[in-house]
Amino acid sequence: QSSRIDGLGTTIFARMSALAAATGAVNLGQGFPDSDGPDVVREAAVEALRGGANQYAPGVGVPVLREAVAEHQRRWYGLDVDPDTEVVVTTGATEAIAAAVLGIVEPGDEVIVLEPYYDSYVAVLQMAGAVRRPVTLRAPDFRLPLDELRAAVTPRTTAILLNTPHNPTGTVLTADELAAVAQVAREHDLVVISDEVYEHLTFDVPHVPIATLPGMWERTLTISSGGKTFSFTGWKVGWASGPAALVASVLGAKQFLTFTSGSPLQPAVAAALRLDDDYFADFRAGMRERRDRLCAGLADVGLGVVVPDGTYFASTDIRPLGFEDGLDFCLRLPELAGVVAVPHQVFHDPDTPLEDNPGRPYVRWAFCKRADVIDEAVRRLGSLR
Amino acid sequence: QSSRIDGLGTTIFARMSALAAATGAVNLGQGFPDSDGPDVVREAAVEALRGGANQYAPGVGVPVLREAVAEHQRRWYGLDVDPDTEVVVTTGATEAIAAAVLGIVEPGDEVIVLEPYYDSYVAVLQMAGAVRRPVTLRAPDFRLPLDELRAAVTPRTTAILLNTPHNPTGTVLTADELAAVAQVAREHDLVVISDEVYEHLTFDVPHVPIATLPGMWERTLTISSGGKTFSFTGWKVGWASGPAALVASVLGAKQFLTFTSGSPLQPAVAAALRLDDDYFADFRAGMRERRDRLCAGLADVGLGVVVPDGTYFASTDIRPLGFEDGLDFCLRLPELAGVVAVPHQVFHDPDTPLEDNPGRPYVRWAFCKRADVIDEAVRRLGSLR
Ligand SMILES: CSCCC(=O)C(=O)O
Ligand SMILES: CSCCC(=O)C(=O)O
Repeated sequence: QSSRIDGLGTTIFARMSALAAATGAVNLGQGFPDSDGPDVVREAAVEALRGGANQYAPGVGVPVLREAVAEHQRRWYGLDVDPDTEVVVTTGATEAIAAAVLGIVEPGDEVIVLEPYYDSYVAVLQMAGAVRRPVTLRAPDFRLPLDELRAAVTPRTTAILLNTPHNPTGTVLTADELAAVAQVAREHDLVVISDEVYEHLTFDVPHVPIATLPGMWERTLTISSGGKTFSFTGWKVGWASGPAALVASVLGAKQFLTFTSGSPLQPAVAAALRLDDDYFADFRAGMRERRDRLCAGLADVGLGVVVPDGTYFASTDIRPLGFEDGLDFCLRLPELAGVVAVPHQVFHDPDTPLEDNPGRPYVRWAFCKRADVIDEAVRRLGSLR
Repeated sequence: QSSRIDGLGTTIFARMSALAAATGAVNLGQGFPDSDGPDVVREAAVEALRGGANQYAPGVGVPVLREAVAEHQRRWYGLDVDPDTEVVVTTGATEAIAAAVLGIVEPGDEVIVLEPYYDSYVAVLQMAGAVRRPVTLRAPDFRLPLDELRAAVTPRTTAILLNTPHNPTGTVLTADELAAVAQVAREHDLVVISDEVYEHLTFDVPHVPIATLPGMWERTLTISSGGKTFSFTGWKVGWASGPAALVASVLGAKQFLTFTSGSPLQPAVAAALRLDDDYFADFRAGMRERRDRLCAGLADVGLGVVVPDGTYFASTDIRPLGFEDGLDFCLRLPELAGVVAVPHQVFHDPDTPLEDNPGRPYVRWAFCKRADVIDEAVRRLGSLR
């Protein structure tokens, strides 16, 4: 095993989903819905399979999907994106992030990251030999501390790895927060790699791509995917869009990571991106209802709930129930209550000693599940009371 | 753009397929068939799509596919593989190679590679900060020079990146060549990363996985994929198998490159791996026929043909027709004759000056095409005579 991946271990999602499978617990850990997306999207994939879209798609992605991504960016955000040079299709957002970091960031570069963060961020920064500069969204409101953001910049900083709506906290950056990030980026000439996979999952607040702010298009790579928005997480069809030079860097790395993927799934995601407004409104409304259902249940159980503005995750403080350590809590939870959740602490910087880990008493729960599954989880959690 | 990908440019396959699309040339460049694989495999994918296999597969791969890979290794090679710890599913062989190199090779390590080689090998070795040690298969017979292989080992060598059946030359390593590689690996305690995607495409010679040689299982990672064997190259479902520690290293890197991919395609590839012997025999026989068809045609045109023992590529010397430089030839070929092919020289070490590039007068032609397409290509090439 190379030092490049030393200490990275096994992603928490694999560990927790394996635990759920082994114990029969209700899985509110890994973020995937328990109902597939629209039939029309699935049938578009069937049609592509039967219609012969089974050989290598171009590494940059099939034209119809790149066009659909460009249309989507115009339709929802008014962005003007050239499908031929400013979009690259990837194996989910995960590959887009990996290829962006490997394609853009130099060894020794410092990269600002909003902590807590998805574990692949730490991993790919380590693989790239980059230095993490975490800026911490702190409980109980998980807002972005603007002074700390500004203080995190050094002469070696070259990029900000942004994530809004933010996983695991559910924070959606406000106009003021985005403006502050943009100002820092412009002032110090930084690239922004912005993971926006939950772009269609904000509740009563807007999602604003940072690429839409003045002077930001030309320095921002916006990453999203079809998995979360259309409930086909296993298809792993994602994309990055932005100025041609940044997109070329992503493609430059990506062509040697996977070359291409999911040829028959790409046209189906194109069809999904063109679904009418009702689809997006209903998807959001349905998920908002489940958020409220889960949050009410978790509060009932006695947990300290932080209601998220976006994503499909809610966070709780476990201390009201007498627990201290989220990882320990989550490892015992299948036995204690037959439920799986994910501790915040694994999303915090691995260099922070456990006593100082601000995520220690926080646990993340996925609500992208059927109402009866949420109810059953809450019922089971009642035993913790 | 980071120095990690500097100079790697755009993969030749993307360039040449774009050229084919732009000029309407017959594409014998990028290696993909023009007819899809078995209906029963495609319908297995349809069934998986409709049956709900649409959320994240485990990063290591769905159990049914890992079991099918293990069965396949036993059925064809007598290898005893534990599907739970000794197989990892990847986004095609490309990701398996990238994750193997990133997960196993240290910066500064020397890696022996059979040159000419697939361009992703150079790229991922560069991304990993490894040092290439090419051992050249030289025209006209493209055999492995055993003395040069032995001489390529230094105290810093840690791995051999093997490829048999070999792309682009079509060489299938003989028992003697494999034994020599194995001896070197054992003697110097090297890991062998063996790309065997054309394992079912050898003609009148056997394919022998190096993992089956004495003392080799424990140091070999065997890579293959469903794309070539079942004619669904766009699905990008591949795998690596080998001892648990090596497989864990691949998974350790891969989980952060793509996490997972192709959930509904994985069970279909499992079904494909379980096809009866007739499928494999017919596939091989059909491809052998096309090889002979194309090779006869190319010889007729006046090219110096090297008939391959494996893969779906034939190579030719272009000098008999008065050309010197394969890249120049291939760039002009759409205009000269309405055909696309791939020059060997781009598969040679980028550090070799062009005058010394042994691949310069060689060009690779794919024969995984319908008979009428091969005939049309040959007819068009007649204008070169
Ligand atoms: C790629 S597995 C993790 C899914 C996810 O985004 C999450 O649970 O945070
Ligand atoms: C991954 S694109 C290249 C396909 C192939 O293996 C080849 O043409 O050599």
